[in-house]
Amino acid sequence: MESMVQRVVRQVREAELTDNITLATNASQLDIIINQLGESVSVVTEPERRDTFPAIALAASYLKLAKNCPDDEVVVIMPCDPFTEAGYFETIGKMAVCVERNVADLVLMGITPTYPSEKYGYVVPETASRNAEGSMIVRQFTEKPNVERAKQLLSIGALWNGGVFAFRLGYMMDIVRKYIKSDSFEDTRARYCEFPKISFDYEVAEKAQSVAVVPYTGQWKDLGTWNTLTDELRRPVIGNAVMGPRCTNTHVINELQYPIYVDGMEDTVIAASPDGIIVCRKKYSEDIKKAVDNLTPRPMYEERRWGSYRVIDDTTYADGRHSLTKSITINAGKNISYQVHRHRSEAWTIVEGEGIFVLDGVERKVNAGDTLVIPVNHHHALKALTTLTFIEVQTGNPLVEEDIERSQWNWSE
Amino acid sequence: MESMVQRVVRQVREAELTDNITLATNASQLDIIINQLGESVSVVTEPERRDTFPAIALAASYLKLAKNCPDDEVVVIMPCDPFTEAGYFETIGKMAVCVERNVADLVLMGITPTYPSEKYGYVVPETASRNAEGSMIVRQFTEKPNVERAKQLLSIGALWNGGVFAFRLGYMMDIVRKYIKSDSFEDTRARYCEFPKISFDYEVAEKAQSVAVVPYTGQWKDLGTWNTLTDELRRPVIGNAVMGPRCTNTHVINELQYPIYVDGMEDTVIAASPDGIIVCRKKYSEDIKKAVDNLTPRPMYEERRWGSYRVIDDTTYADGRHSLTKSITINAGKNISYQVHRHRSEAWTIVEGEGIFVLDGVERKVNAGDTLVIPVNHHHALKALTTLTFIEVQTGNPLVEEDIERSQWNWSE
Repeated sequence: MESMVQRVVRQVREAELTDNITLATNASQLDIIINQLGESVSVVTEPERRDTFPAIALAASYLKLAKNCPDDEVVVIMPCDPFTEAGYFETIGKMAVCVERNVADLVLMGITPTYPSEKYGYVVPETASRNAEGSMIVRQFTEKPNVERAKQLLSIGALWNGGVFAFRLGYMMDIVRKYIKSDSFEDTRARYCEFPKISFDYEVAEKAQSVAVVPYTGQWKDLGTWNTLTDELRRPVIGNAVMGPRCTNTHVINELQYPIYVDGMEDTVIAASPDGIIVCRKKYSEDIKKAVDNLTPRPMYEERRWGSYRVIDDTTYADGRHSLTKSITINAGKNISYQVHRHRSEAWTIVEGEGIFVLDGVERKVNAGDTLVIPVNHHHALKALTTLTFIEVQTGNPLVEEDIERSQWNWSE
Repeated sequence: MESMVQRVVRQVREAELTDNITLATNASQLDIIINQLGESVSVVTEPERRDTFPAIALAASYLKLAKNCPDDEVVVIMPCDPFTEAGYFETIGKMAVCVERNVADLVLMGITPTYPSEKYGYVVPETASRNAEGSMIVRQFTEKPNVERAKQLLSIGALWNGGVFAFRLGYMMDIVRKYIKSDSFEDTRARYCEFPKISFDYEVAEKAQSVAVVPYTGQWKDLGTWNTLTDELRRPVIGNAVMGPRCTNTHVINELQYPIYVDGMEDTVIAASPDGIIVCRKKYSEDIKKAVDNLTPRPMYEERRWGSYRVIDDTTYADGRHSLTKSITINAGKNISYQVHRHRSEAWTIVEGEGIFVLDGVERKVNAGDTLVIPVNHHHALKALTTLTFIEVQTGNPLVEEDIERSQWNWSE
């Protein structure tokens, strides 16, 4: 089992493209990335979700301002969600060569289409003849055409835009400075909201004076939207769900404990997780990202460096009181930090595993079945000897993640 | 605020039809019915869900064998889910008169159609002329026709079958005895599975030699299926959900804490509760009842005479351990019985209200924020002084509702 980001980092290394990998991601994903990749890659976190141009602009600023890369450094931008094979990374190598040889300011990867898809953007080359570096000059871009137009595009040799871009760092930084002029990466990141909410394709690729495309013909499966991801699922149902007899091209992915019953649906994806439930016609599934921003007041599932937690209940009562209940798992050998809360008490019931619990400087061994009561203002920590899960009930006011003061504890074992 | 069953019982009493009301319901609904109606009505509970014929046969057996009603007693069967006005109950009065005057063996209510619906069964009268009692002899029944056929039916004066039936008890008991011959109601109930799974319409109405219909023209809104219920909802969204711009005739009812996002749906109902999530084309929503039997291993929400509970987590871990976490509310002045568990320990954290807790014969006052630990084999009870909610974490093996021994506790206040 390998996550998308683990796979792509492994593939980049196996292709010996570079060891200098920087991951651009949302701040909320940082702990997941570090859990999966350790400290072997640099990570740039966007403080809020905007679009692909701001994300790439921030990553470029990091390379320029934090890592002091030179302006003529060749940078390749690639998404982590396509499922590909080794030839994909060879193609990326060719793209970098094209930039080094100044074939064009911007070089992108063109995926050889397998059918007239309405899901992708198309890149139309000037002519089908390739130059010495294997690239073709780009005449125009066409965003998600209908099937008829897609057939025409295929007939003139158009390729799918694979979202892989190569350029010299200085080229990108000239565009970045149109919005934010700064000598400091921290300052640029703090002013992130000044970048326009626009895709890299619209802001950079379509405006570029000189663009080339390098074709790739091998396996390429886009797993970045529910629409494309469900195409690759072997079974229509994952998790606790029952599909009625009158469904066509419908997929259910259920991470919740509640059963799902579906009938009479067409071309629909149903995805249920602690962060929310999506019921969406597949062709609209790309719009979900925009729509669900701020749908949950707090994240309902989070991975942390020490493990993960899931909110299982979050209720405000008629008398104004509030309680928050979580299922928290600490991985074997990890611990949650020695901490104190000023406004809430916590009751922890261990339901799996064994560990060492500290309360106000006193360590004790704890096991499944034990209940630990932590009043307001009492210091506590918990270390897992084996994988340890506990149910935490928080009471108090306010119940916010920020009510935490951390200090150091030296574990006896 | 009044539930469907509270409303219909109130209306029957206001119409002075009878004080002798018997409610036929599923065993799982018994506590809800008693909470809502007290002990003022008789309740017959079917041990398992079968269909309308077995349910009515069991209710008739109760009247005959448990209540010793005479064979010539007039019985009226009515569903509790249509939304109606006073004239509906006047019509029921007329139906009872028809049976008393021996107009027909079976008398049913015909709802005057407002449009050529495909959702209902139709009753076709012999002629449009009514006899002295206001009834018409029935020629035939037609189940859910298509729109064209429905228009034809309207043109010949057909009425919707409202699911209200009147007959003499002896008439029904002759049919009951085709399947179960018994002098004991308890015995009949124990043999409930011997009744065929068939609707009253098919087993009784369509086979009857002499059937009359009494028309009703007033307000009548069927709230018995999602398809008909959503027609009556003023807003398309109830609960935490966002409807995207490309939905038509779609309704979301969300009782869960997880947000729901919906887009691109047509004629769809999405209903989410702790017992499960339904995503269904409205016209198929009647089939849900059959499909979802046994979908959940345990009820995720239950009303009890003392309050209610909701399962918020139910997990089996890699080491084979199992934990069950519930949010439990006890209504003010009520208590849960003095009890002991032989295989599980419980940790209760009070999150709302105040009450009196008993552990092994010792009472103490408890409040929101308190955590109460109840090891295996210790007797305990809890009484709510105000509405009291607690989070219960069960650990042990097995975690089953049956692991409970109850005894008496005399509360000091």
